[in-house]
Amino acid sequence: MSANAFTIDPWGVGEHGLDLAAQARAESVFALSNGHIGLRANLDEGEPHGLPGTYLNGVFELRPLPYAEGGYGYPESGQSVINVTNGKIIRLLVDDEPFDLRYGELRNHQRSLDFRDGLLRREAEWTSPAGRTVKVSSMRLVSLTQRAVAAIDYRVTAVDGPVRIVLQSELVANEQLPGGETDPRAASVLEAPLLSEAHAVSGTKAVLVHRTRFSGLRVAAGMEHLVEGPVGFDAVAESSDDQGRISVTTVLRPGEQLRLVKFMAYGWSATRSLPAVRDQVEAALTAARYTGWDGLVDEQRAYLKEFWATSDIQIDGDVELQQAVRFAMFHVLQAGARSEERAIPAKGLTGPGYDGHSFWDTEAFVLPVLTYCLPGAVKQALRWRHTTLPLARDRAVQLGLSGAVFPWRTIRGEECSGYWPAGAAAFHIGADIAVAAARYVRATADVEFEKEYGLELLVETARMWRSLGHHDAAGRFRIEGVTGPDEYSAVADNNVFTNLMAQTNLRAAAEAAGRHRLEAAALGVDTEETAAWRDAAAAMYIPYDEKLGVHPQADGFTDHQAWDFDNTPPENYPLLLHYPYFDLYRKQVVKQADLVLAMQVRGDAFTDEQKARNFAYYERLTVRDSSLSACTQAVIAAEVGQLDLAYDYTAEAAMMDLHDLGGNTRDGLHMASLAGACIALVAGFGGLRDHTGHLSFRPRLPSGLERLSFSMLVRESLLHVEITHATTTYTLNRGGPLVLMHEGEQLKVEPGHPLKLPVKMPETPERCVQPPGREPARRHPQPGVQVGSGVEHLPAE
Amino acid sequence: MSANAFTIDPWGVGEHGLDLAAQARAESVFALSNGHIGLRANLDEGEPHGLPGTYLNGVFELRPLPYAEGGYGYPESGQSVINVTNGKIIRLLVDDEPFDLRYGELRNHQRSLDFRDGLLRREAEWTSPAGRTVKVSSMRLVSLTQRAVAAIDYRVTAVDGPVRIVLQSELVANEQLPGGETDPRAASVLEAPLLSEAHAVSGTKAVLVHRTRFSGLRVAAGMEHLVEGPVGFDAVAESSDDQGRISVTTVLRPGEQLRLVKFMAYGWSATRSLPAVRDQVEAALTAARYTGWDGLVDEQRAYLKEFWATSDIQIDGDVELQQAVRFAMFHVLQAGARSEERAIPAKGLTGPGYDGHSFWDTEAFVLPVLTYCLPGAVKQALRWRHTTLPLARDRAVQLGLSGAVFPWRTIRGEECSGYWPAGAAAFHIGADIAVAAARYVRATADVEFEKEYGLELLVETARMWRSLGHHDAAGRFRIEGVTGPDEYSAVADNNVFTNLMAQTNLRAAAEAAGRHRLEAAALGVDTEETAAWRDAAAAMYIPYDEKLGVHPQADGFTDHQAWDFDNTPPENYPLLLHYPYFDLYRKQVVKQADLVLAMQVRGDAFTDEQKARNFAYYERLTVRDSSLSACTQAVIAAEVGQLDLAYDYTAEAAMMDLHDLGGNTRDGLHMASLAGACIALVAGFGGLRDHTGHLSFRPRLPSGLERLSFSMLVRESLLHVEITHATTTYTLNRGGPLVLMHEGEQLKVEPGHPLKLPVKMPETPERCVQPPGREPARRHPQPGVQVGSGVEHLPAE
Repeated sequence: MSANAFTIDPWGVGEHGLDLAAQARAESVFALSNGHIGLRANLDEGEPHGLPGTYLNGVFELRPLPYAEGGYGYPESGQSVINVTNGKIIRLLVDDEPFDLRYGELRNHQRSLDFRDGLLRREAEWTSPAGRTVKVSSMRLVSLTQRAVAAIDYRVTAVDGPVRIVLQSELVANEQLPGGETDPRAASVLEAPLLSEAHAVSGTKAVLVHRTRFSGLRVAAGMEHLVEGPVGFDAVAESSDDQGRISVTTVLRPGEQLRLVKFMAYGWSATRSLPAVRDQVEAALTAARYTGWDGLVDEQRAYLKEFWATSDIQIDGDVELQQAVRFAMFHVLQAGARSEERAIPAKGLTGPGYDGHSFWDTEAFVLPVLTYCLPGAVKQALRWRHTTLPLARDRAVQLGLSGAVFPWRTIRGEECSGYWPAGAAAFHIGADIAVAAARYVRATADVEFEKEYGLELLVETARMWRSLGHHDAAGRFRIEGVTGPDEYSAVADNNVFTNLMAQTNLRAAAEAAGRHRLEAAALGVDTEETAAWRDAAAAMYIPYDEKLGVHPQADGFTDHQAWDFDNTPPENYPLLLHYPYFDLYRKQVVKQADLVLAMQVRGDAFTDEQKARNFAYYERLTVRDSSLSACTQAVIAAEVGQLDLAYDYTAEAAMMDLHDLGGNTRDGLHMASLAGACIALVAGFGGLRDHTGHLSFRPRLPSGLERLSFSMLVRESLLHVEITHATTTYTLNRGGPLVLMHEGEQLKVEPGHPLKLPVKMPETPERCVQPPGREPARRHPQPGVQVGSGVEHLPAE
Repeated sequence: MSANAFTIDPWGVGEHGLDLAAQARAESVFALSNGHIGLRANLDEGEPHGLPGTYLNGVFELRPLPYAEGGYGYPESGQSVINVTNGKIIRLLVDDEPFDLRYGELRNHQRSLDFRDGLLRREAEWTSPAGRTVKVSSMRLVSLTQRAVAAIDYRVTAVDGPVRIVLQSELVANEQLPGGETDPRAASVLEAPLLSEAHAVSGTKAVLVHRTRFSGLRVAAGMEHLVEGPVGFDAVAESSDDQGRISVTTVLRPGEQLRLVKFMAYGWSATRSLPAVRDQVEAALTAARYTGWDGLVDEQRAYLKEFWATSDIQIDGDVELQQAVRFAMFHVLQAGARSEERAIPAKGLTGPGYDGHSFWDTEAFVLPVLTYCLPGAVKQALRWRHTTLPLARDRAVQLGLSGAVFPWRTIRGEECSGYWPAGAAAFHIGADIAVAAARYVRATADVEFEKEYGLELLVETARMWRSLGHHDAAGRFRIEGVTGPDEYSAVADNNVFTNLMAQTNLRAAAEAAGRHRLEAAALGVDTEETAAWRDAAAAMYIPYDEKLGVHPQADGFTDHQAWDFDNTPPENYPLLLHYPYFDLYRKQVVKQADLVLAMQVRGDAFTDEQKARNFAYYERLTVRDSSLSACTQAVIAAEVGQLDLAYDYTAEAAMMDLHDLGGNTRDGLHMASLAGACIALVAGFGGLRDHTGHLSFRPRLPSGLERLSFSMLVRESLLHVEITHATTTYTLNRGGPLVLMHEGEQLKVEPGHPLKLPVKMPETPERCVQPPGREPARRHPQPGVQVGSGVEHLPAE
């Protein structure tokens, strides 16, 4: 499928026709979710499909983690997201011919996703093998306001006829999944994970209750229907262990339409009884039916209107990038909106990739974006981490450490990494969480959160760092044998990113304990302990290669052999599928920004000259085999004045899924890269840094963009920033005055008094060099007219 | 079972009584093998058993190696030694009561293994639950002269009676094995690995032929019998898929004896046909029967007489150590005598531990001993490595390297390590093999071997090193991201042992190529390549910590946090079962001699002062959780003048299995530690070093020993070295004159002219300190009379 598989529209994504070979990718791109329920964009009729997917946040199955050679502390059991009961299915029979796009003649097929109302629309015109033609249209939503609910408005219209129409609206558990995946990044496929507990029908309503075999989670799925059509339709309901079905039959004459509105509801619990979970689902169905289809659509539109008011990033000069960044914001919203004390997985709820696990991606990439537009979602995500503290404390004990050790990858909170050098050893996850909590508190002034949750997260992670590191004979605080962000290195000493993040973590914990002495004392923190944190932070060792004038990513890195890029053919990327870890780890080759990310999150620890030299050094080594790299490279490229390079990287991050740059969008969207595209714009071209008390900006645009504007919610003030090549305008759209930094100068934005300041363009240094063949694609902006509005109708082409 | 489970005798090991709980350990200690066939000392009647075991060198089954998270180049399939058809079984029925030591009354039970005739003898007197008393005696051997053959002389004598006696002599395939092992060091148990292909009986002969399911190896086992007894016995033969049985029935009056001589033969092949393998076994049986029991015993005795003439190590002053070192030599002989182009496994053929794999142990510990007493076995072992070169070259290609990469653990030659940081990353195996080949050539002057096999092993490993390492900007040759001998560190840069061994390897390859230019040219070696090897060797980087004045085991090691020994309770050893690798790897804690081993094998690279400081430094960190440590620590302790400490370590290495110091003798004997005990004596107290052209000695005895003498075969000369506290005497017992070094002085020993030289006792420095609780047991010599002769009768007690 080409890069132009989807139509370009500033407020939506459209698809013309249907490419069966690339169906799974479109199922991810068009996936709907509210962070609680996730529906892949499988066709209404179920088949053909790329990868059927219906997910509930937190519903997983356990599976054994096998080891050829085991070791102490290795997790014995993994967690895998499962495909739960599929409620999306509405099968259509046209004179007994199943509506199946693989047979007959597909005269028209279009789908579109609109970011302003969150509806996935579909239009199809199809002639059956027997020669009957029907038009099918459907709209689908996963409610952002009623978190247990999804709904479909399905209509079939006879073009010729009369035709006998049967609609079978179904709930299907234990769907057969396509298998045979050999890429280790893809999820293991779990077959038939659901055991039936109950099934029932009543009128046009059906409910199925199942339980997972090993993880013991009870899952209920229900559906209720409204049918509109010509007089004389008939509805029959049936259910069995793994299936609920409502069949509606009628005869349509040409031009007549049968409409089925399907409300779906899901509920699950690890503890509640079967009746409780079933009733919860039936209540949600009742509420949805009461709200009605139009009501659900209105709520969705209102919710998104408010979201875009605080969150929209506008770009003039590149409509494709404009589309991509709204696509990104929309999916980040979908992933986080209603996750509510559950994790935000690396793929959201758009696919089974990475087993449905959450990683540091959430705290390091997704939450920094949500903090300034949907802070409530950040609070929920961090509260989820807080609920896992008992598990994290147990893990610390198992590893011989103090405080809490959060898992590298998990669904519920247990460590699920089966390869410790690239998993459990990546201790920076603890600081990523702590720093996200501190950022949330700075951005919201949510003191209650800090007292109840944030402080404890900071304290327990600070304790972990204090016990993980040690002072050497020269008094330097060293952290050894850990893995930084770059997955082509592992188990190294004094990873600069890790040490700087630990330093931030230790300091933030001491500061928070100072602000909340009673609460800190209740956690056992005394002044000796905070002093020990401050001391370790002050003595933190940051290696530096004096000869080269650059920071080694970790001790010894710059002494290592350089990767032989010249003899690495293009088809050998990603390298991890073609070279052993042993070879990658021992050479200078970087999968994803590591030292460069350190320069973003701790810019204060580097001089401008060091930043420029470091960036140039690591550009030559970074192959971006991870989707978590381009956005960070964009940010630092912009800071060191490489604005066109920053633009290229921004586009790459933004197009990761729309252009399937990683070749694995089929398994789900790359949430962190999508969030990273927003970071690239705001922190790159906006120059936003937020690791001190005030937001700080250093705006500068690449030649390809004419205007960039974005909003940020900061302590209930809504700051709007508009950047052109000449000026930057700070406007307060809501709330009280705000102090911020612009080009290093402190200034105060007051309501009703926008500040318009000149942009200081940096000198343009020579463009940095990447490994041969790994240069980002040069971005050629698409300044053309914004084709179509994306709302209510499909984009023209 | 106490440390004194076995009787002390200078020429044998005896056991009085039977400790059922420790049966598996005794089965290992009394195991018989010739390197081709291995029989654990299971009781003749099969049950009770600790762990039944009958092994054929090279007969294994494949099993999948699972990974929770896979990676490029991970081996997909492992190899596990299997328990083949058991031919040891002779069941006895006394008036229909099975002879089972768990029932009735065991009046007497003794076993003994004599190192001079290689026979395992057993005497039992037993009263059945019904009150009948019989005496059972048996002798068992695995022939060192007829490698396919083992034999048992079994006698039962009626004490009261008359009694009806039935003997069932059996071949049993797919014996049920005890399971439930959770220690990752123990072998995975493979159930019923043999598929029946044929079975037949004829007279008192039976043959079973099987094939392994996945590895496709054909295994034939046969037995033939001689029966002697009072008139009127009856013999019946039967066979089925997994069983062959000869039943002999008679009635014995008091004092009468029934004798059954059982000849067993084994054959296996990956390629030959069923008739071919079966005929091979029948031919071996015919030859054995022709030789007869007495003939086999005579051959065995003659073979061992010659072995001890060249190999015996004599100790005055500690009879227990004398026993242990002969036990060690005997089992090293059994492991290597007839392995003949097969590997010598870490456990020999005494148990299923480590899956029956061979490691670097063989080349680094076992071959150095065999080189000077049974050089033909060394040639065979290295020829086996040579046969695996095609596999090792393929592995190098897979890993992106030149030359050959030998497997860390294997049976047939494929890499079977399922955890690469402690497996495939231990590249020093290549140098261990190369150095063993060079030593063999120096000790034997076997030029034909060097041309045909040794040169290619040296060349292909040198090529590997040249491609694995690289020159840094300062011109130093660095080898990064590899694992040295110490398994509590992994994947480090510039491991001193590895770099020094690589240096030796590169130089030896260049020298051998210079000696055999035509043969080297045929391997594609030109003068540019040998120059590149010499250059890399000359530029080899050896890290040194100037501040501490010690060598770090690898880059950065001495900066790491020290292990918290004070808070490590005794029950937490071995540490690998109680702490995660991540924690072990990142701290200063050493499982087994690594830098200290470097000082043994490359003493020329260290000054005497460095040796003393290094030894003291690493003594504080070394916990000896590996059996491959005490012997090396003994050697360097002796070199730096810590003679009593060396004595303690020597005893520990020597008692590893007799005292079950690792708690896992049940899974098989620790061949490398047994060989290491001999090394501790000869290289420690004898001060032997052999990495230059001439053997070099610096003899000195600890206070506990009065005399140490040993022999060494060097280029067909037999050198005898006798050390007392006052003098060392070098005598040439065979062959022409020999140049050697004594205390740094070159001297020549001529036939008929023993050289008697004074011993230079070093100063006695302060005793080094070990981690608390990990000190070696202080050795209290047992100078007592050598109780019993061990031959033909059991040691008195």
